Amino acid sequence: MNKLKKQLHTIIFEADTKAGRWFDISLIAFILISIIIVMIESNPGLSPNTQKWLTLAEWSVTLLFSVEYLLRIWITVHPRRYIFSFFGIIDLLAILPAFIGLLLTGTQMLIVLRSLRLIRIFRVLKLTRYVKEASILWAALIAGRNKIGVFLFAVLILITILGTVMYIIENPVNAGFKSIPVSIYWAVVTLTTVGYGDIAPITTLGQLVAGMIMIIGYAIIAVPTGIVTSELAKEIRHTSVNTYVCPTCFKDGHDDEATFCKFCGTSLKD
Amino acid sequence: MNKLKKQLHTIIFEADTKAGRWFDISLIAFILISIIIVMIESNPGLSPNTQKWLTLAEWSVTLLFSVEYLLRIWITVHPRRYIFSFFGIIDLLAILPAFIGLLLTGTQMLIVLRSLRLIRIFRVLKLTRYVKEASILWAALIAGRNKIGVFLFAVLILITILGTVMYIIENPVNAGFKSIPVSIYWAVVTLTTVGYGDIAPITTLGQLVAGMIMIIGYAIIAVPTGIVTSELAKEIRHTSVNTYVCPTCFKDGHDDEATFCKFCGTSLKD
Amino acid sequence: MNKLKKQLHTIIFEADTKAGRWFDISLIAFILISIIIVMIESNPGLSPNTQKWLTLAEWSVTLLFSVEYLLRIWITVHPRRYIFSFFGIIDLLAILPAFIGLLLTGTQMLIVLRSLRLIRIFRVLKLTRYVKEASILWAALIAGRNKIGVFLFAVLILITILGTVMYIIENPVNAGFKSIPVSIYWAVVTLTTVGYGDIAPITTLGQLVAGMIMIIGYAIIAVPTGIVTSELAKEIRHTSVNTYVCPTCFKDGHDDEATFCKFCGTSLKD
Amino acid sequence: MNKLKKQLHTIIFEADTKAGRWFDISLIAFILISIIIVMIESNPGLSPNTQKWLTLAEWSVTLLFSVEYLLRIWITVHPRRYIFSFFGIIDLLAILPAFIGLLLTGTQMLIVLRSLRLIRIFRVLKLTRYVKEASILWAALIAGRNKIGVFLFAVLILITILGTVMYIIENPVNAGFKSIPVSIYWAVVTLTTVGYGDIAPITTLGQLVAGMIMIIGYAIIAVPTGIVTSELAKEIRHTSVNTYVCPTCFKDGHDDEATFCKFCGTSLKD
Repeated sequence: MNKLKKQLHTIIFEADTKAGRWFDISLIAFILISIIIVMIESNPGLSPNTQKWLTLAEWSVTLLFSVEYLLRIWITVHPRRYIFSFFGIIDLLAILPAFIGLLLTGTQMLIVLRSLRLIRIFRVLKLTRYVKEASILWAALIAGRNKIGVFLFAVLILITILGTVMYIIENPVNAGFKSIPVSIYWAVVTLTTVGYGDIAPITTLGQLVAGMIMIIGYAIIAVPTGIVTSELAKEIRHTSVNTYVCPTCFKDGHDDEATFCKFCGTSLKD
Repeated sequence: MNKLKKQLHTIIFEADTKAGRWFDISLIAFILISIIIVMIESNPGLSPNTQKWLTLAEWSVTLLFSVEYLLRIWITVHPRRYIFSFFGIIDLLAILPAFIGLLLTGTQMLIVLRSLRLIRIFRVLKLTRYVKEASILWAALIAGRNKIGVFLFAVLILITILGTVMYIIENPVNAGFKSIPVSIYWAVVTLTTVGYGDIAPITTLGQLVAGMIMIIGYAIIAVPTGIVTSELAKEIRHTSVNTYVCPTCFKDGHDDEATFCKFCGTSLKD
Repeated sequence: MNKLKKQLHTIIFEADTKAGRWFDISLIAFILISIIIVMIESNPGLSPNTQKWLTLAEWSVTLLFSVEYLLRIWITVHPRRYIFSFFGIIDLLAILPAFIGLLLTGTQMLIVLRSLRLIRIFRVLKLTRYVKEASILWAALIAGRNKIGVFLFAVLILITILGTVMYIIENPVNAGFKSIPVSIYWAVVTLTTVGYGDIAPITTLGQLVAGMIMIIGYAIIAVPTGIVTSELAKEIRHTSVNTYVCPTCFKDGHDDEATFCKFCGTSLKD
Repeated sequence: MNKLKKQLHTIIFEADTKAGRWFDISLIAFILISIIIVMIESNPGLSPNTQKWLTLAEWSVTLLFSVEYLLRIWITVHPRRYIFSFFGIIDLLAILPAFIGLLLTGTQMLIVLRSLRLIRIFRVLKLTRYVKEASILWAALIAGRNKIGVFLFAVLILITILGTVMYIIENPVNAGFKSIPVSIYWAVVTLTTVGYGDIAPITTLGQLVAGMIMIIGYAIIAVPTGIVTSELAKEIRHTSVNTYVCPTCFKDGHDDEATFCKFCGTSLKD
């Protein structure tokens, strides 16, 4: 029994063996299949026959994921820790929709739960060479989170004030700016340069103010980019220069490929 | 009396005590409530009953803010300095609309004054750990303000010329480009990549020129980002210089690699 | 005569005296007035009376600019060099439209010439503290011009191929993609994230390919920003670190504020 | 025969002689002509006469390209290596469409093949001074490809989940969000800030969620820019290391501040 557990652990939790890699690839395949099923189901006007086949396919995937979930609980050394871990919860959410759908009907929200299955792909990718890259990106976002937070907060207040101003300018004439929340929605659409055009200023003053808002947005959009770039540059620099200090002149900042101190010529590899 | 003043000062102007923190949180809550009232009021077709309740709520918030304003004047050591400070004026603007609304009717502009209340949130946030982050962002924008100014000025001239060119190309055929100011508005919408689509070129020449404008805008949009990123990187680097103070001249701001004080030449490594 | 010339030279070509500054400010005012006249004239449905006044105002500005142009030729030491300089040509273009308009009628293109007057503002700004900032921006763009050129060239080829692909996908069904040039225009509008929406894919395959194009554009839009930022960061670094070499240890990279070498402590100001 | 071959090699494969440069320029001209033919042909409602001339022009260009292709095979020392090289395949694809069009009719896909001719321009540009710039850009993209890949992957999953959420919110009310794939298409259009406006949220909740998606996209769009900028800055810095070669180990790539070779410790300043 213990040996079977060990073997299954290698297959399910690791990716170094051939079987482990096959398990990962087929897991990704089933996740993608389940997502494609959700997408097809959402199309209006499917024949009852197609719907029957889709329901069958959905149940097959759910059963497979259920078996996998139970196996994971059974195999792992700390079942409780697994169940309440981030991926443990995602794994559970991935199989819940179908079972809940048996009890309740017409619950549209279940579709979102089913689309959360995509997050499971990250579990498999955790085992690849992308981890380092992702962790650098993540570290940069974490390092810049306070600055981005302050920035987004200021943008939210700016958007509220600008939306209110545009509501007052456009409201009686332009049916699009029908209330302040809608005007704020317009301000978000404009300042982020998305610009649907479903609501657009038509008065001369409104177009003037909107033009000014866009040019302000022009300068503002640079700020998050600046934050992320600065932090990312710092992260990348940190990971590409080692922290080794020369034993003779005590200077650091040497490249990873350096064998001798570039300042005093002492060997760094002794 | 003096003791009460001191206690109130701790509550209203500081955030280190439990009471002070509660005061800040309830202030934010009331600011948000007052903003939500403005938003609901702007919706067309409210029942008279709802409007009555909203007016009542608005007056309650205004009275609370008035009491707070008077308290601040009474408590502070330099009342005049407070009244004419940035936040003193914002605090006054936050309570004015309701009182002006008593005298005048149909004054839509008061809604903007009421939305300015949001700025008051910054007063509370001044006391948090976000100050340092905000000051770095602000320093970067200030350091880059001349460059951004020069850039925006050049963009304004470019937009005027491009708008005029498109007016000449599209005007007789396309009803959207009905005058030069409207064409300049279109140029702003296009160059900032907002792109509503309420005005769009329809002649072949117009689409060709518009395409060229977009590709120019593609290169141009990079400039403000470049400015902010460079300045921000510099600011972040400056904050990464060590905090070591020279033992002789007591100046700081030394690079990590510095061995001697750059101001007086004293050794920093002893 | 010579004395008058000298005095006028100080007023017209320099900005250090009070008279010179007044001349510059009134020049900017007249340039802006002439631009506003062009904008008002472009509005459809002006009364004949308004048009008469506008024509009068335009002629007044033109005569003022003509007098200024002739004065400049008379005053300057090298008239020919001035006439064929960049600003000499712009100055001439600024007064030509009205005179050409006398000979020819219905020449819409003259409006563009008149809008070129805005460029004259740069002549005045040349004399201000923005020169250094503008020259840094300009140097960064010049340093990056080959990279930006290579990038824009690759984008143009990509746009042509993507436009052709979308034409084949959408053409029979979607009236918007009526020819390859129009499809290429759509590709420009999409890849630059302007997104008017006057032409949009409606077939499933078209929307899939369009989505892929947008996500490609997402990564591509980063390139010009990256180029400008890198070059700008280099320019800013160059201008903020002096090139002074320490006379004792021969190291450079000292801050402008440094009085002593940060590596060996030698005085830098001797 | 061998001498003729050598002479042709200089003309076709090199660009240093006058004849070689003329060959390159006329090649670019013919490529552009062939692209313009494709564009004109795509316009609906051409007269039969025009179509006849266009077919003739297309065949002339195809024959010229065929002769050039055969010459290249004949001249080159390793014909097989040329045929299966990237540009060999592009050269073949450039002449195939016309010949395939003889056998099959109504094959629209051939137009794409014909637009691929544009890629041939890169062959000529390979010989210019833009190579270095392009290789820096390319190196930066290659260095950042894993980070960009991780980022795009996360964006794809985010888009799928957001599209599903918006489908559930908007679907019964808004005809635009008719299925999950279409909603995902909307999420791509929104997150990349293209914003056509062909599909736009109309419910209050939908507009709220859409606004949040846009503000998220605001922060997210900064990431690819940050990646490219950081990598590009590193590439540019690498090319700014001096070209000094160590006299002992003959390795280069030393920093400007280096006094000793970082590979073998030899002094670089003697």
